Amino acid sequence: MPEPDRKTSGPTPTSAAATGTRLDPWFGAYAERTHGMRASEIRALFAVANRPEVVSLAGGMPYLDRLPLDVLADIAQRVVAQRGLVALQYGSGQGDPTLREQILEVMRLQGIDAHPDDVVVTTGSQQALDLVTRVFCDPGDVVVAEAPSYVGALGVFRAYQADVVHVPIDEHGLVPEALDETLTALAAAGRRAKLLYTVPNFHNPAGVSLALERRPRVLEVCRRHGVLVVEDDPYGLLGFEGDPRPALRSMDDEGVLYLGSFSKTFAPGYRVGWVVAPHAVREKLVLASESAILSPSNASQLTVSTYLQTCDWRAQIKDYREMYRERRDAMVGALAELMPTASWTVPDGGFYTWVRLPDGLDAREMLPRAVTALVAYVPGTAFYFDGRGADHMRLSFCYPTPERIREGVRRLAGVVAGESELVDLFGPGTHRADHDVQTPGPDVS
Amino acid sequence: MPEPDRKTSGPTPTSAAATGTRLDPWFGAYAERTHGMRASEIRALFAVANRPEVVSLAGGMPYLDRLPLDVLADIAQRVVAQRGLVALQYGSGQGDPTLREQILEVMRLQGIDAHPDDVVVTTGSQQALDLVTRVFCDPGDVVVAEAPSYVGALGVFRAYQADVVHVPIDEHGLVPEALDETLTALAAAGRRAKLLYTVPNFHNPAGVSLALERRPRVLEVCRRHGVLVVEDDPYGLLGFEGDPRPALRSMDDEGVLYLGSFSKTFAPGYRVGWVVAPHAVREKLVLASESAILSPSNASQLTVSTYLQTCDWRAQIKDYREMYRERRDAMVGALAELMPTASWTVPDGGFYTWVRLPDGLDAREMLPRAVTALVAYVPGTAFYFDGRGADHMRLSFCYPTPERIREGVRRLAGVVAGESELVDLFGPGTHRADHDVQTPGPDVS
Repeated sequence: MPEPDRKTSGPTPTSAAATGTRLDPWFGAYAERTHGMRASEIRALFAVANRPEVVSLAGGMPYLDRLPLDVLADIAQRVVAQRGLVALQYGSGQGDPTLREQILEVMRLQGIDAHPDDVVVTTGSQQALDLVTRVFCDPGDVVVAEAPSYVGALGVFRAYQADVVHVPIDEHGLVPEALDETLTALAAAGRRAKLLYTVPNFHNPAGVSLALERRPRVLEVCRRHGVLVVEDDPYGLLGFEGDPRPALRSMDDEGVLYLGSFSKTFAPGYRVGWVVAPHAVREKLVLASESAILSPSNASQLTVSTYLQTCDWRAQIKDYREMYRERRDAMVGALAELMPTASWTVPDGGFYTWVRLPDGLDAREMLPRAVTALVAYVPGTAFYFDGRGADHMRLSFCYPTPERIREGVRRLAGVVAGESELVDLFGPGTHRADHDVQTPGPDVS
Repeated sequence: MPEPDRKTSGPTPTSAAATGTRLDPWFGAYAERTHGMRASEIRALFAVANRPEVVSLAGGMPYLDRLPLDVLADIAQRVVAQRGLVALQYGSGQGDPTLREQILEVMRLQGIDAHPDDVVVTTGSQQALDLVTRVFCDPGDVVVAEAPSYVGALGVFRAYQADVVHVPIDEHGLVPEALDETLTALAAAGRRAKLLYTVPNFHNPAGVSLALERRPRVLEVCRRHGVLVVEDDPYGLLGFEGDPRPALRSMDDEGVLYLGSFSKTFAPGYRVGWVVAPHAVREKLVLASESAILSPSNASQLTVSTYLQTCDWRAQIKDYREMYRERRDAMVGALAELMPTASWTVPDGGFYTWVRLPDGLDAREMLPRAVTALVAYVPGTAFYFDGRGADHMRLSFCYPTPERIREGVRRLAGVVAGESELVDLFGPGTHRADHDVQTPGPDVS
């Protein structure tokens, strides 16, 4: 619809924006990167999925009802009453120094030894992803990432016009040999891989973790190919058994950017995340962050800092772990009982299981029917850069109660059974439409 | 220093990052845009300038001591106690609907009539600037901006590899004829101007405002050339006389992106700003923001929203206006008395005056001597994309008390007198070094 809008308030035909449309007079003025930004095809469905009668196994929202709100309310009060002139003022672009010290303490649980100067506080770890990509990726640069990968990261890479090349994973996470082959093939093709993006613990969406013995091998491969590792680790402390695994960053100071977040171990509403980076890279990240937001919120940082200082945050994490383990059990129990024709990963931490549908079923096509049956999930295609994934869906067990999870799986099993019947009768793909693979927005973070 | 670092943890010579240096093994891996990011030459000086014995006329921090901290502490408490499960959770990418309604009420004071759907809440209006530039500017695109312009905006345009072309201003702000000429010349040269970036009220750093009768003319020129207007208006409600001027956005719904902020009319520590955009552009901005940060902080938004709902925010703004007027009076009074060889603007609102030094003086060269004399300012060069401005300095009167302002000007006058003597004796530029023009970081916002 390239018909220019030539009304009084629209640009004239001589203008740079003369290629505007009736719906958008500025259509012709957008940057190249903006044409890759489109609302998700499934966003409309998610608006429906947020209704209370729908069991949403789609979102990645943590369950906050067990936070001690009265205690947190008192902390919020105290921060403003006692340190209001700092809390309400602009802060440092790098983040509050005390909070950065405390972040070191949190990371020590995963074997990370760093200096407060190495930490940059960000507006959620999503901003860390944005800054890292901004600092490293030119259009056309390659980011290597697990197949599948976190939808929000793929969105950032797309926004910077980077290209994502997926590397296979198995039940032990990223396969080092496959990574090596991929990087070798890219180099042979003259393509430059800048970053490996990986979620080593309790992968979103795959629910697997990178085996301990593979960690040094992944690092070695990346070092050999000169590829910087972006270790995105929001769930690292939310394992259901044993101690937290040592982070990749604990084995390599210079080759890893570590991304952490309080969104899952405490609460996302303050939007406090961080990135740990080698010195020179850290300087670039601070400059990029100052350009993006001047400084992260002091009010948020001081509140999180006071929480860490005055509350037993380790006990809170333990409580979360027990709650999420119970929900994981509800999820895999219900799947085993009600959806035996599918297969799935059994995560030992985090928020998600990755379900392979029975042969011939398409998770995107099925979604409207699932929502009609009052259950929602995220189709696997959201987690690939290249259109794959229709045979998978991500189910999250973080937010609904065990009872609701069971009910959700029951509804979903009914939909799957109905779809399978259709496939048996008419063959697969009989009602396939041409879909775009899109980022479904923040509700599936 | 292109000597590769070949130690164990560094990349190997076959790697993409083989052009790393000893100081930065990843030097060769940065994106093109990152090479334009450098720490300000005056950043080190500002670290010194933040010492309490230095009178800083450099920063743009609002003076918060007159905020009712006890009341704000109770609000912070209430938000978490009563609405904690929302405040601490992820929110909408576009921002809290109630807050967006309240923002309309604030903007109505400047004649803006909009719909809540037109508003996107951002992490300070700096993020709005970042998102707007991200959505519109390809590398090499031109942004037209006042000469001088807000240093933080120039930093964003540089970060997106846009080029800034300055347009002259006078005591009545942007000169519409000069704008028209500039845009015509750009078009003739085949260069594409995407945006006009303007601070129409109480300009940072120039301290002038766009005359009422020029406002429709500026809009007409931009419309004719197909250039989108970015109206950055953090100070619009902080005028010292009369009613707020009508915003450019109040005269044009389709051709203006309006950027607002609570940082100066309330407090910057929550990092709550916003942008008002035509429908289609707003959709792009929301997608860009979701990619950048997922969602703005619910805790911050709900706190600001509750403040607006339960406090007399208009009275708070009136209080700020009176305080800043008194400080403006202290500043221009001291300048008239103590620095008569300079000239300056007399702002009728906002935070800044723009001082022209006596002939032959260089504000960058003079800064180290000023800091030695325990007074700081921002050299005019920070506010130009093209190296101009050494004959000017920005003095801010927002943060120091009237007594401190007077003392600061007294110290500065001594430095200026000493420099003038040197120039009289040896001629101008005798000790000129080769400086880069750099963004001085958030402390001078």
